[in-house]
Parts: sequence; structure tokens; C-alpha cells
Amino acid sequence: MKLIFTKSELNKAVGIVMKAVPTRTTMNILECILIDATTNEIKFTGNDMELGIETIVEGEIIEKGKVAIDAKLFSEIVRKLPDNEITIETDSNFTALITCEKSKFNISGKSGDDFSYLPAILKDKMITISQFKLRETINQTLFSTAPNDNNKILTGELFEVKDNSLRVVGLDGHRIAIRNVSLQGRADDIKVIVPGKTLQEISKILSTDDENMVNIYFTNNHILFEFDKTVVVSRLIEGEYFKINQMISNDYETKVIINKKEFLDSIDRANLLIKEGEKKPIIITIEEGSLKVNVNSAIGTLNEDIDIEKEGKDLMIGFNPKFLIDALRVIDDENVNIYLVNPKAPCFIRDNENSYTYIILPVNFTA
Amino acid sequence: MKLIFTKSELNKAVGIVMKAVPTRTTMNILECILIDATTNEIKFTGNDMELGIETIVEGEIIEKGKVAIDAKLFSEIVRKLPDNEITIETDSNFTALITCEKSKFNISGKSGDDFSYLPAILKDKMITISQFKLRETINQTLFSTAPNDNNKILTGELFEVKDNSLRVVGLDGHRIAIRNVSLQGRADDIKVIVPGKTLQEISKILSTDDENMVNIYFTNNHILFEFDKTVVVSRLIEGEYFKINQMISNDYETKVIINKKEFLDSIDRANLLIKEGEKKPIIITIEEGSLKVNVNSAIGTLNEDIDIEKEGKDLMIGFNPKFLIDALRVIDDENVNIYLVNPKAPCFIRDNENSYTYIILPVNFTA
Repeated sequence: MKLIFTKSELNKAVGIVMKAVPTRTTMNILECILIDATTNEIKFTGNDMELGIETIVEGEIIEKGKVAIDAKLFSEIVRKLPDNEITIETDSNFTALITCEKSKFNISGKSGDDFSYLPAILKDKMITISQFKLRETINQTLFSTAPNDNNKILTGELFEVKDNSLRVVGLDGHRIAIRNVSLQGRADDIKVIVPGKTLQEISKILSTDDENMVNIYFTNNHILFEFDKTVVVSRLIEGEYFKINQMISNDYETKVIINKKEFLDSIDRANLLIKEGEKKPIIITIEEGSLKVNVNSAIGTLNEDIDIEKEGKDLMIGFNPKFLIDALRVIDDENVNIYLVNPKAPCFIRDNENSYTYIILPVNFTA
Repeated sequence: MKLIFTKSELNKAVGIVMKAVPTRTTMNILECILIDATTNEIKFTGNDMELGIETIVEGEIIEKGKVAIDAKLFSEIVRKLPDNEITIETDSNFTALITCEKSKFNISGKSGDDFSYLPAILKDKMITISQFKLRETINQTLFSTAPNDNNKILTGELFEVKDNSLRVVGLDGHRIAIRNVSLQGRADDIKVIVPGKTLQEISKILSTDDENMVNIYFTNNHILFEFDKTVVVSRLIEGEYFKINQMISNDYETKVIINKKEFLDSIDRANLLIKEGEKKPIIITIEEGSLKVNVNSAIGTLNEDIDIEKEGKDLMIGFNPKFLIDALRVIDDENVNIYLVNPKAPCFIRDNENSYTYIILPVNFTA
């Protein structure tokens, strides 16, 4: 095999497929990137058996062939080579000679025959959204999942398509993040649970440009993302997701409209007085025209005051500040609407368009 | 006590004195910043008993007084407050009320009476250099010291003034970094060992501007840096420093002039094939017009070739790549001169002006 790339194209492609290469594994071959130039195009693949990524790389094929190369070493070599043409050449023992200007690396590769290609996916049920919107949706919900929970379902996100709208949900038992995206055209109904790790990795390689689209295909066991010259395939999490609709209510006793930045900055300061792991809540007092933030901990006390618009009853309620901070940080609006019922009932943070909903359980407090 | 500051002035001052506040200590009072407004100026002090920093802070004194406040908490509060006027007020129990806009923090402080002020230093022997040059000198030598050695002397740097020139030296037994700075005016002879940690911290608060000067005062036990509105005092390390002059030689058998960036990039790539902790050297072969970099390790091989100007004999020599990388990274010149004698003798990297010298011991290798 003999291939010629530009450094920038090679660097980009390695960066993409690396996202599916596990850092620790007992199967050496999984720590490799497969370079496949057996046809008329060059394809790189990374695959940890849960998540697989494939991308077509621009380059010149001087001699066809394929090889599996240690992903970490290969990516570091590519990154540190001069910004010029890079040639990769293998011999019959799969030793790879990587040359660029006056630099010649020899590293041992493996036969690509043991490498697992991505599973073939029936491209039946499909939706299309912009890469930017998928990225934003993941960023606005993924923090609400429980990354290391024994209950696998809590580590993933619900992707539900109904009435031409995509709903993505993450929850960890203390809070729920919901993001709605309306879809163009007609879409089949879908309800699957996607691993959080898959979404984490894909969000890193999606474009930030609103004009680039991603096609998402669904089967019973897999989800497939197709964008630019890249395909990402992931297994789904088996099981029945929680009944979200039962948790959502439109009833409220108190509605608050508050400046998001002022509220976030205030909670962020309040959090300074609460030690990591401490269960101490911050106390929020809602009155006519003002929301008071109060903490009284072993470290000290804080009292703040934020101007608000209020409808309905006055209320005093306690929260874990981290949960409020996580949600407020990913909201891009100037103002947010907060809906409350009583100090024991979940609090809803919503925008006017109903594009996102954060539901946060309050914490008991002694006033 | 009642004081009013701008956020930016307060933030800057806290950042400066924090550099002398220890992260872990058994003496609670050392984890505090002392705010002293008993006279007509406001002075902040941090002091871990080895290193002390004092800075004058611009602000309005409404009521005189002093208080010691937990440094970490105080700095976080100041950083997160809005960019506006900040008032600090204490009561007779040393509880500090910190207010800014609608935010009111109450945190407990301590009487400043137990706090150790900086030791009084006899301002006798003194030199003056620019802050920029001191910073650069520290950055170009400190990496060569042994930060955690049982031999205290290896953890510090020699500051030697002789013939109106400052020489700063760091060494760890494998390499030596020497930086010479010529001084304006007449200076007394000085020879002291300054703790590496002191230099590390001071380099973070020195200005990058070549016009701002720093006065450095020396006694038998202390070094004092005076610049802007800040004073830094540090104990010295006791003992006799190594006899540097005996290690410096101007004899050589081979002289190489090489492009610094090409050499650094090449060694940096070679380092990819050497595992952390492995004793494997890189091998450098110097021939007419070319320097070859070669590694042959369990991971793979690398061969590179760099154009050079050479005087004297051909030579093959092995190095720990990390030591070459550390030295080349802090050199700002386009080309460097390398002087060699034989594969067992130290290698010297120098500029034409003799402003820096790096001496690196070679490593045995089997060709």
C-alpha cells in the first residue's frame, strides 16, 4: 500500500476516527485505526464495538492495500510532522513507513483482516437536522444524564420522533433536560435510547455551521449518523425509557421571568459557600418583583436580590445550586421562565417557544 | 474597618499575594490574606514563612482597621462578583461583610494580630534589572533544577553577581542552565541560592513589559524583590553552590550551527518513540553539512536529517531527548551553536553573545 495525503487532511481524518478508539482495551486491534485503500477511495475506521466511526479521506492512492496502525502513536506522529505532503507506505509485514520532508518514521502495523468494520445498517427510518442543531441539542441535555449509573438507561438519552418533531431527553433522577427540534418533511415515529458516550463523542466532530446537515438513521439496535464524509454507528441501549409525559405538567402556582445571566451569576456565587458533596441547598424566595437568593452555611452567608416579573403566589424553595447552574449555563436566551407549584414539587425552566424544558427537583430546607 | 475598591484593582492585588499563600498547611492563619488598613494606605500580605508577598492596593479607607481572611474563598468571591465597586466591612468579631451591587457576602475573618508580616530586610546590596529580563531568566533556567530533590541546593538557583553581571544557574545533575545578564551601574559581588518555588511564583507576577524595573536586595538569609507596588521576600537556601566555573569549558572538537526550530521539532518527533521513563537515548550523527537524528526503539524507528554548518570532527552521540527539548524550547534565537568534544563529554548549547549556556550530559548508546 502507498498513499499520499496533505498533512491537514490526514490530521483532520485521524482526529475524527480517534473518537471511536478506546483508550484501554484488552483487544489490541481495537486500539488501531484501519486504513483501507483496497478500492478507489481511502477510508479510515475506528471502532470500539459499541461506537464505530468511518471517514473518507482525500489522498492519492499510488498502490492499493490496507493496514491497521496504533491510533494514538499514529495521530501523534501526524500532528508533529511538518505541514507538507505525508506518504504512508507498507510492506508485506505491515510495517508502515511514514515520510514527510526529511523525516522517516517506521512503525509496525497489523493486517487489517482482524479489524471489525462498521455493521451494515438498514437505512430505513431517517431524519435530517443541521449539525449545529444536533450539537446544541446534545450540549443542552447530556449533562442531565448519569454517566456512571448501574441503570444503563440513565446513562443514555431518549431520541423520540413523533408528529415531525424530535425530542431528546436526559435524566438522572434529580433533574430532566428536554429539547424539542421540529423536523422538515415527514418522519416516521421513532423511540430509542442512545448511549451518552456516543453523543459526547459525536458532538466533538459535528460542524458548528448551521448549513451542514446530518442524516440520522434508526434500526432496532443501532443509530447511524451520516454527515460530510463521515459515518458514525452506535449500538442503542436496550430497555424501556421512563414515561416522560407523566412528569411534565403545565400547571403552576408561580411564574417568574428572570434575566438568565443575573440568575446564573448569583447562583454561581452562592455555590462558593457550599462545599463539594455537601447537601446544603440554596434558598430562593420569590416575592413581588424580586427573587432573593440566600445561603447560610458553615463557610458564610450570602444574600442577593434580583429584579423579576412575577405571576401568582409568593414562594420559598430550596435547590441544589449545581443543578440550576448546569441548566442555566446551556441556555442561550436573555430571559428564562420559571414555573413553580410548591416547595416540594418540581420546578420547570422553559423558553417561550417550548424548545427546551428543564425539570429540577427541589431540596428540603429548614428556613 | 471599612474599605472600598474597584473590582479590577482588588482582583489584581489578591492574585498577587495569593502566590505566597500555601495550599495546605497546619497553621490556619497562613491560609489567609492579611488586609491591613491601619495606616493611610491599604496593604495586602500573603506569607507562608518561606516566601512572603506584600502589595499596596488602591482603595478608599472609610474606617481604618485590619483583618485576616481565608485567601482561597476571598479570591473566589472577588472573582465572581460583578465588575463594580466592592466594599469590605468588618465588625468587632472580624466577620467580613463583602458587598457589591445587590450581593452581600458574610464570611468569618480572623484578627490580624497572629499574622506574620514580612521580615524587615536591610536594603544594602542591590541590583536593578527589567521585570521582563528577570522573568525570561527564570524561564530559561528553572526547568533545569530538581524540584523535589533531597539535596536542597538542587531545588534552588544560584544568583551570582560579579563584575557588574548577574549569572543565574540551575542544575539537576544531568544538565546545567546558565543565563548571564549584564547590569547597569556598579553592583556589589553577591552569591546566594534562591528557592526554585520563590522564582516560580515571582515569575507569574512580573510584568512582561521591558520598561518596568525590579530592584533585588540581598542579605545573608533573604532575597527581596521590589517592583510596582509589590514586595516579595524569600528565605535563601543555605549551603555552598557547586563550582560552576570548573564545569564550563571553551574547548571543543566539533561545532554545529543549526536552525533551532528544525532541531527542536525533530527531537520532539523522536521523543514520540520513547516511552516515559525509558532510558533509550536518541542518537545524533554529525557529518559534513548534516545532522542526523535517529531513534530505534520497541515502538519504531525514526530517521531525520537537518542541514547544518559544521566545524571540526564528525561525531556520533546519544542524548535523553527531554533534556534537549527543555533547553531548545526556551531559546528564542533562530540558530543555536552546539559545541561537542566526544560521545562521553558534556555538550554545550550557546548563543553568540554568551547570554545563555546549556550543558547537557550525553547518554551511552549502542550504535
